[in-house]
Amino acid sequence: MRLTLIPSLGFARPPKRGQLRVLQPDCIARLGELLPSNRFYTDPVDCYAYAYDNSRKLFPPDAVIFPVTAQEVQAVVKLCNQFGVPVTPRGRGTGTSGGSLPEHGGVALSLERMLRIVVFDPANRVIVSEPGVLNQSVQDTAKPAGFFWPPDPSSAAYSSIGGNLATCAGGPHAVKYGTTRDHVLGLRAVTGAGDMIRTGCYTTKGVVGYDLTRLLVGSEGTLAVITEATLKLTPLPEAWSGLTAYFRDIKSCSAAIVQIMALPQTPSALEFLDTGSLNLIRSRFPDMVPNGAGAMLMIEVDGLERSISESRGAVLRACHNGGLIQAEATADTASLWLARKTLSPLLRGIAPKKINEDVVVPVSALPEFLDGLTQLSRKYRIANVNFGHAGNGNIHVNLLVNPDCADEMTRAEQCLNEIFDLVISLKGTLSGEHGLGSEKRAYIEKEVDPPTLALMKDIKRVFDPNNILNPGKLFP
Amino acid sequence: MRLTLIPSLGFARPPKRGQLRVLQPDCIARLGELLPSNRFYTDPVDCYAYAYDNSRKLFPPDAVIFPVTAQEVQAVVKLCNQFGVPVTPRGRGTGTSGGSLPEHGGVALSLERMLRIVVFDPANRVIVSEPGVLNQSVQDTAKPAGFFWPPDPSSAAYSSIGGNLATCAGGPHAVKYGTTRDHVLGLRAVTGAGDMIRTGCYTTKGVVGYDLTRLLVGSEGTLAVITEATLKLTPLPEAWSGLTAYFRDIKSCSAAIVQIMALPQTPSALEFLDTGSLNLIRSRFPDMVPNGAGAMLMIEVDGLERSISESRGAVLRACHNGGLIQAEATADTASLWLARKTLSPLLRGIAPKKINEDVVVPVSALPEFLDGLTQLSRKYRIANVNFGHAGNGNIHVNLLVNPDCADEMTRAEQCLNEIFDLVISLKGTLSGEHGLGSEKRAYIEKEVDPPTLALMKDIKRVFDPNNILNPGKLFP
Repeated sequence: MRLTLIPSLGFARPPKRGQLRVLQPDCIARLGELLPSNRFYTDPVDCYAYAYDNSRKLFPPDAVIFPVTAQEVQAVVKLCNQFGVPVTPRGRGTGTSGGSLPEHGGVALSLERMLRIVVFDPANRVIVSEPGVLNQSVQDTAKPAGFFWPPDPSSAAYSSIGGNLATCAGGPHAVKYGTTRDHVLGLRAVTGAGDMIRTGCYTTKGVVGYDLTRLLVGSEGTLAVITEATLKLTPLPEAWSGLTAYFRDIKSCSAAIVQIMALPQTPSALEFLDTGSLNLIRSRFPDMVPNGAGAMLMIEVDGLERSISESRGAVLRACHNGGLIQAEATADTASLWLARKTLSPLLRGIAPKKINEDVVVPVSALPEFLDGLTQLSRKYRIANVNFGHAGNGNIHVNLLVNPDCADEMTRAEQCLNEIFDLVISLKGTLSGEHGLGSEKRAYIEKEVDPPTLALMKDIKRVFDPNNILNPGKLFP
Repeated sequence: MRLTLIPSLGFARPPKRGQLRVLQPDCIARLGELLPSNRFYTDPVDCYAYAYDNSRKLFPPDAVIFPVTAQEVQAVVKLCNQFGVPVTPRGRGTGTSGGSLPEHGGVALSLERMLRIVVFDPANRVIVSEPGVLNQSVQDTAKPAGFFWPPDPSSAAYSSIGGNLATCAGGPHAVKYGTTRDHVLGLRAVTGAGDMIRTGCYTTKGVVGYDLTRLLVGSEGTLAVITEATLKLTPLPEAWSGLTAYFRDIKSCSAAIVQIMALPQTPSALEFLDTGSLNLIRSRFPDMVPNGAGAMLMIEVDGLERSISESRGAVLRACHNGGLIQAEATADTASLWLARKTLSPLLRGIAPKKINEDVVVPVSALPEFLDGLTQLSRKYRIANVNFGHAGNGNIHVNLLVNPDCADEMTRAEQCLNEIFDLVISLKGTLSGEHGLGSEKRAYIEKEVDPPTLALMKDIKRVFDPNNILNPGKLFP
């Protein structure tokens, strides 16, 4: 097996930091003793598929390793720790923030072949899963017993549990069911120092020692490599129902969101689409959106069969205000998501690039935030389209840009900077579910103050003293 | 102000550790500059009320300090850190594990005068609270707007939010609503190094940086002193209903628990009482418990008015098995709790001391666990009474002992040791909601393996390099 040094391929790479080293032949030889050749790639052609994720950046690793046991993960991490070689854990590469990019080369540790559902225990509402198992496979396993696992990122069909855990994935149903951190009981993981640890427990209550489980969830592979997760299942509701509501403007739509969130029946999804989104849909489906509509809500309720129509009725009443143009029940909840799911591909069609953010503001601040977005779009002459999980105040802001226009890219950067300042001024947060990765790490200091950030870095050092695990991610 | 050294009072105190020092006159003088005399006690008589908690042990502090702002907390911690003086944060002292005992003397930092509800924001379902606010005050604030804060330890009326956070308090409704960690969005806190930090966010989604919020929740005041918490509120259900079910034996009762937990309607409470508990109730209320009943469930369901009777019916059907003696709806849910609430005082009446544990086992392991308890009770001739939150598998095991009988105490210790081994062998955890404090720290190594424990200790050092915050708690 031959190592071709990646810089010869001409890809951009950030400068090496501190003690991090490229993969040298002696380390390659040792790794080769640990793994068969079909689970250890060093040919740049083979490595290429592990150079990128959905952030659309390219950083080829020097090697790709596919462990199939926790012991193999530990052996690889120990060796890389000894040689000071970066290790970037990777699920299925669906993240949008660059969290799984091997920016500093070294080893891409692909967990995609750790595919076992180790335990399915419906009596205790538990699935124990290896990290490479797809979110969808967990749902398929749980469903026949009447359960589901609530985190449902839009990538659920092809993203892995390990990736969902690393980013604390959310999705439209988080408004009622919470995010990944609310549905994990315990973990097994290998730290950057190569120690195998076991966090949390198998039961729904447990307070023995520090909560390392939730410390690892959302840590984007910078502290430890998760090798097994004990997932808490939730009973499937008996029934679902959906409705769509069109509003004259953002203001009346925002007012309805606040009203809906004050109901005792929390909707199971409450998705918002702005004027730009509706115009996009109009371009593809001319008759779908009523005239005069400037904002839309797609709402799902779930619960017992007997109460579902009452829940839908309550939500419908909460939508009634001066700005409501039209509201109606949808025949089935699958059709409810049609418009929403067409948005991302449509966006790709109208602009060469979208800068895709997932900021969060308090629900009551949505009118001010959305109004601010409109103003910033005008000020910087950057088109934007905004939609997202309104019940959590989690808005996917998409700035539409042409990466070949330097002036536009500069304006977009300034616009983004002001958007983040606006979010923070409204008591919001820069990321609701995508994570910081490499795309947003430069902004963390807007939100996290210096002593808290220093503490996070100290914790990183405790888990990963040589900074080999996904180095450079999260922190500026 | 005069310092009387505590050992002269003749109380037991564990040996001093490492760099920890008693409170010296120079430090007292400096603290006196920070606080008025009515918020800084050094007289042993005044300090006495802060020497104990509900673990019934006594460790008088050298001083008690009542800060009213985060800045005062910071100034006190900084000074004590400089002088190497232990600081034991304290809510209302209702904990049963000794977590708030000032075992090494020094300063008891009572947060009970930090009593402000800083923000009540129903539109965003948020209350921002200082740590001294009672759980009940949060409920009273939230209720008129149609919300509640789910953690409901039985001490809710007189325990503080700070204490609830420090122990990750649970309660009977955790079976449906989860525990404290599921209902906190962010914190402000002062670390053992005296740094003021801000964790988490104000919104229901947020993944920026490591999850320090949940790292602090349940850390029993060993990492930082919480000075403010952003609490996530939940809409009050429209209706409640209760039912009681009596079973011939533990086995049939356990089978019903598993059936109930498989329903799509998770009950809002599912409490279990064993034969010993029923006999205690019989001693006080002779007609309450039917003949032949060896176990009881008290079940609450909540939800929409329209569906509540259906939910109750489903639970009732799940109770039907060969061992069911009698099941009936209760007129109101308040009366449902009558029997349960009389148990603790009744227990105090029949034995000089109860060793009160809160172990958890997977729900499906309850029959085996409860059977094991019976056998261990016989083997060691230690009477026990067991009840608790069956839906979580969280059982309050009470060993009834006479502390003046050395032989009985030895047998009780051996019995407890075997109970913990049984819990671990069944994939359970040693504490579901009380925490380890000082009472259970000796057993942590049964559950947490050496590398994970080492990591926890390293994290402690990051937050509290001089080991002044609640020193000696949690760890053996």
